[in-house]
Amino acid sequence: MNMIEIDRDNEVPIFRQIMDQIISLTDRGFLKPGTKLFSTREMADQLDVNRSTVYRAYQELWALGYIESKPGSYSYIRKRGEMVTLDTDPNVPKIDWAGRAVPSRGVLSRPAGPRIRKAAGNETTSHIDFSPLTPDRRLFPIDDFRKCLNSVLRRKGRLLLEYGDPFGYGPLREYIAERLQQHGVVVKSDEILLTSGSQNAIELLLKFLVKPGSSVVVESPTYSAAIPLFRYYQAELTGIGMKEDGMDLAALKEVVKTESPAMIYTMPNFHNPTGITTSQIHREILLSICEKYRIPLVEDGFEEEMKYFGKAALPIKSMDRHRVVIYLGTFSKILFPGLRIGWVAADRDCIEQLAALKFMGDLGGNNVDQAALNLFCRMGHYDLHVKRMHRIFRKRMYTALKCVKKYFPPDSASWTRPIGGYTIWVMLSESPLNPEALADYFEDFGVRIRPGNSHFHESTDNCFFRLSISRLSEPEIEEGMRRIGRGIKKLRG
Amino acid sequence: MNMIEIDRDNEVPIFRQIMDQIISLTDRGFLKPGTKLFSTREMADQLDVNRSTVYRAYQELWALGYIESKPGSYSYIRKRGEMVTLDTDPNVPKIDWAGRAVPSRGVLSRPAGPRIRKAAGNETTSHIDFSPLTPDRRLFPIDDFRKCLNSVLRRKGRLLLEYGDPFGYGPLREYIAERLQQHGVVVKSDEILLTSGSQNAIELLLKFLVKPGSSVVVESPTYSAAIPLFRYYQAELTGIGMKEDGMDLAALKEVVKTESPAMIYTMPNFHNPTGITTSQIHREILLSICEKYRIPLVEDGFEEEMKYFGKAALPIKSMDRHRVVIYLGTFSKILFPGLRIGWVAADRDCIEQLAALKFMGDLGGNNVDQAALNLFCRMGHYDLHVKRMHRIFRKRMYTALKCVKKYFPPDSASWTRPIGGYTIWVMLSESPLNPEALADYFEDFGVRIRPGNSHFHESTDNCFFRLSISRLSEPEIEEGMRRIGRGIKKLRG
Repeated sequence: MNMIEIDRDNEVPIFRQIMDQIISLTDRGFLKPGTKLFSTREMADQLDVNRSTVYRAYQELWALGYIESKPGSYSYIRKRGEMVTLDTDPNVPKIDWAGRAVPSRGVLSRPAGPRIRKAAGNETTSHIDFSPLTPDRRLFPIDDFRKCLNSVLRRKGRLLLEYGDPFGYGPLREYIAERLQQHGVVVKSDEILLTSGSQNAIELLLKFLVKPGSSVVVESPTYSAAIPLFRYYQAELTGIGMKEDGMDLAALKEVVKTESPAMIYTMPNFHNPTGITTSQIHREILLSICEKYRIPLVEDGFEEEMKYFGKAALPIKSMDRHRVVIYLGTFSKILFPGLRIGWVAADRDCIEQLAALKFMGDLGGNNVDQAALNLFCRMGHYDLHVKRMHRIFRKRMYTALKCVKKYFPPDSASWTRPIGGYTIWVMLSESPLNPEALADYFEDFGVRIRPGNSHFHESTDNCFFRLSISRLSEPEIEEGMRRIGRGIKKLRG
Repeated sequence: MNMIEIDRDNEVPIFRQIMDQIISLTDRGFLKPGTKLFSTREMADQLDVNRSTVYRAYQELWALGYIESKPGSYSYIRKRGEMVTLDTDPNVPKIDWAGRAVPSRGVLSRPAGPRIRKAAGNETTSHIDFSPLTPDRRLFPIDDFRKCLNSVLRRKGRLLLEYGDPFGYGPLREYIAERLQQHGVVVKSDEILLTSGSQNAIELLLKFLVKPGSSVVVESPTYSAAIPLFRYYQAELTGIGMKEDGMDLAALKEVVKTESPAMIYTMPNFHNPTGITTSQIHREILLSICEKYRIPLVEDGFEEEMKYFGKAALPIKSMDRHRVVIYLGTFSKILFPGLRIGWVAADRDCIEQLAALKFMGDLGGNNVDQAALNLFCRMGHYDLHVKRMHRIFRKRMYTALKCVKKYFPPDSASWTRPIGGYTIWVMLSESPLNPEALADYFEDFGVRIRPGNSHFHESTDNCFFRLSISRLSEPEIEEGMRRIGRGIKKLRG
């Protein structure tokens, strides 16, 4: 007797009707485990359907665990040890995933999004946000880039959509080498590795050079997103204070007498967060220290292209006779952060090690975007964009510094006067609030700042904050500075 | 007296002429350190040029370290401690970069490119290459993807070219969640993290769960590119042999009695390299072991979509009531590897940890590509592409298995009979050659294979090799199998 009926007017495919009915019969207990099913031929004959239809139904049932069968043999209803449902059994505790994290590396917190304050009514749109250090998307040259993407996909999409060169798209590395020459840096394209932004480059360097307990020298304050990386790799951080001209070289000299740092991490231009640019002399001394003690010097040139005021020295890498400098560059702070394209320029032996680590971790980067960016640069769009950014930010920074002077009470606050980049670093002479509370305080004045403590690897008593003008127009900057000034004045009493 | 002369017919800009002559005078000793230069006004008057021209020359000289100056004051020739040239001093040994690599992690070799044999004349183009497991670029649906890229850039390029969601582009995560439902897997989009391919996902898992000395269970053989990662993170690998139905569960049961693996890594479908697909029963038992001992089970579903023959069970993740399964997926093996888009689907707590690690390492992935891929999928292009791949590879694998049977001598070789994916695993009953030598041997027959030893974490006596048909047409497969068969026969004598 066959309990299965086929409805030929039903739009459900026949194999599925067979399958569904066997499942239903099994679940309702009409077909017991061990019950022998008709062979595909018998079933096909009885139902007057094609044998392959029955075969397909049996296959699906097998895949779902309802039947057992062997090739050429009969099928049986399978004993289903544990019926599968996705209801979680409340009696079985689930794995404590956070507790499984490798303990030495500490508990990780959720990735930090933009600083969003607890909803407080009518604040969101009217706030002026000095916190993010990312390019103003209103200035993105999207259409030119889109055309470049089209062009490279049309001309060589098949090649570009394959796995690419582990060192990154060759012609873009050549372009970067040429462009670095304009900054006095002489490297060949095979001394360059393309990375997923500078962050990826910093991690590769840590993997390469740092083991738990290795000493690493950083400026204090330093790039906030590097700090969790240094911690994760269990570097022993030594912070060197920032003076007007950059990191305190006298202090550094003392440190290297007793420690052998695995690397020194520095940002000579428009240092993040302070905005300080070091002088030629500072660069030479820093380099000579690294040469003398043979310490890899990681020069983060994240805003190399944003020299729009007065004097700007050449990268330390330009003087690197002894190949101790590892130079980091990126397109994220002047063009598109979303592309995730940065690079490392260093001695070939160093680059090979980093490339092997990159390949091990992700099999290399995205070729299509690298090729499109190369074309974008080769067609002169990048040059034009950089010039436009200079014109705009020369004015914006001028406005910012003018307004800081105009609105900030000089007896309560001091600040840096950057010659490029986007950030101004402010120190309050005294504040009743800790940095986080200060950020909340300024929210009430309709303005958002970046509390300075995130840039220190150890706690600090001083009350710093960073102002980034990267996403603000001149009127926004003026209004924002006015609000901050009002906040500072009120803070005193 | 002014030693500088301007040549107004020269095409070198005047500021540069001033600069060059001061450099030349300094380098030749006519201008000594401490020499006071004319003020910009005086120099401009004397040379009859614009004052800003002189100012620019002085700025550049300062940047190059030739002069010292203070705003509003005179400039002086600077004492240059170490003159900078890029000639490397042969007496100073450069940093031994490879020697600096963190020792516990072993010396890294250059990223492996495609297996390229030493030039041997007329071999390159006519070789049939069974070694790469990457999609056939002749089948890439490039134009549809290009249009999707255009569309997303036009519609929301500004947003997409910013830093994105650290978990990956939300709508694509939603699409993946929906698609996983078709495979019986119920996860929400916030239980998915987009990664730079599966490789990136595996590394994140190692960072999260493995410390030096942690036990990790893998199939033996396993995915070759995972082995260096496991080694780098100093996992103690336990290999479980593959039987006809997948990893030897009896052996696994013995292992978990004495070890507490940080994870078990498995590929239930079209296992790389063997091509084996495990049965529903195997999946249930493996899952129950992991549930009983609370071991994270990493299910690498890298070719989930490539089920084109007969029976294919649902992912283990579909039965994952207790959230012990971490599912890995990728678009690299069926669509475009160059996009570098894969994902992890797991318990939300686990995903949060992985997202924090991903954000720490690269600040997240490429939004533009993720958005374009989402549109590509939503418009139905991905479904069509998968169907087309099924039609094509059903035929290709059929041809491959038919030819293996036809050309390989059954007394000298045995092989697997995959029901999907791209790879066939061959074992020679005896071979006078080690696996690498065997690969070279086959080169002489005009065919390239993947030696099996790269898939084992420890050495093996057996002589295995992998054949991937992913990039070969039916005629290429037929001719290639004929050549291999000829090689095997000749090997015997």
